[in-house]
Amino acid sequence: MKILGIDPGIATVGFAVLESNRSAYNLQQCGVIETSSKLSLSERLKQIYQDLLELLELFQPDCMSVEEIFFNTNITTGISVAHGRGVILLAAANSDLPAYEYTPLQVKQAVVGYGKAEKKQVMEMVKRICNLKSTPKPDDAADAVAVAICHARSTTSLLNREGNSSCYTI
Amino acid sequence: MKILGIDPGIATVGFAVLESNRSAYNLQQCGVIETSSKLSLSERLKQIYQDLLELLELFQPDCMSVEEIFFNTNITTGISVAHGRGVILLAAANSDLPAYEYTPLQVKQAVVGYGKAEKKQVMEMVKRICNLKSTPKPDDAADAVAVAICHARSTTSLLNREGNSSCYTI
Repeated sequence: MKILGIDPGIATVGFAVLESNRSAYNLQQCGVIETSSKLSLSERLKQIYQDLLELLELFQPDCMSVEEIFFNTNITTGISVAHGRGVILLAAANSDLPAYEYTPLQVKQAVVGYGKAEKKQVMEMVKRICNLKSTPKPDDAADAVAVAICHARSTTSLLNREGNSSCYTI
Repeated sequence: MKILGIDPGIATVGFAVLESNRSAYNLQQCGVIETSSKLSLSERLKQIYQDLLELLELFQPDCMSVEEIFFNTNITTGISVAHGRGVILLAAANSDLPAYEYTPLQVKQAVVGYGKAEKKQVMEMVKRICNLKSTPKPDDAADAVAVAICHARSTTSLLNREGNSSCYTI
C-alpha cells in the first residue's frame, strides 16, 4: 500500500510518500509545500491544492493520511491551518482518494508506542522505522512520515485482528 | 458590480447574489448549500466546492465577499467552519475571482452602522436595503446578503473618497 502522509498547514505543508508492506516500510519521498506570506490566503490555498494534485499525479498513492489539528493550539493558528486542511481533504476527495484522519496522540501512540511522547522521540522512531541515515528535514516532512506510518500500522493491526485487507477509518 | 456574498460553514453555507450600482441594490438570488452530517468531512468539502463552482458558472459574479470567522466562537466549530472556508476561498482562486474578507464587526458596521448590532437588527436592515417583503430565510442566507452588502458599501465608500472604480481589500 502506498500512503501519502500529510502534516497540514498554510505556510508549510509536510508530505511523505510511504510504501508499506505489512511491517516493511520504504520511504519513497518526503518534503514540504511552502507558500509565501506575501500571497493572499486564497492564493496560498490555490498553491497548496495545485501542488498536492501534482504529488497525487506523480506518486499515485492508494490513500491519504492526514493529521488532525491539535485543539490546544493557538486558536488563530488552528483556524489558519484548518483552511489549508480543508483544501488538502478536498484534493483527496476530488481525486477519489480515501482520506484517513489521525490525532497527534494517535500518531505518537502508533510511532513511539506512547501518546505523550516528545517530538524528539517521534523523529528518532521515524528514522529507525524507515531505516534512514538521518531524520527527514524539515520537521514538517518528518511529521508527515509519522502520520503515514500511523496509518500503515493502524491498517496492519486491523489486518492482524480481522484477517482482511480493507482499510478502515478510526 | 455583481457580488457573491458567502457566510461560510460546513453543514450550511449561506450564499447571496447581489447586483449593486452605487447605492441601488438588487438581490438576484440567495439560499444555502447544505451538506449531510452522514458524509465524511472530505465529501462535505467536495460538495461545497462543486456547488460553489456551479453558482459561479450560473451567476458569473465579479467578486466574492466572504465573512471571516468570529474568533470568540467555540474552537471546535471555528476549526470546522475554517475547513469549509478554505475550499470556498479556493473556489474563488481557481475561478480567478477576487475574494474580499470582512469580519462580523465590519459587516454589522456596514449594514446597520453599528458594529455590535443585534442579529435581528442586521436582518431588518438587509430587508430594507434590498427592498424585500420579508427577511431572507434561513438566517445563513440573510447573513450572506449582509456580507455582500458590506462589500458593496465598502467599495462605494472608496469610490466616493477616491473617485476611481477599482475594488479594494480591507
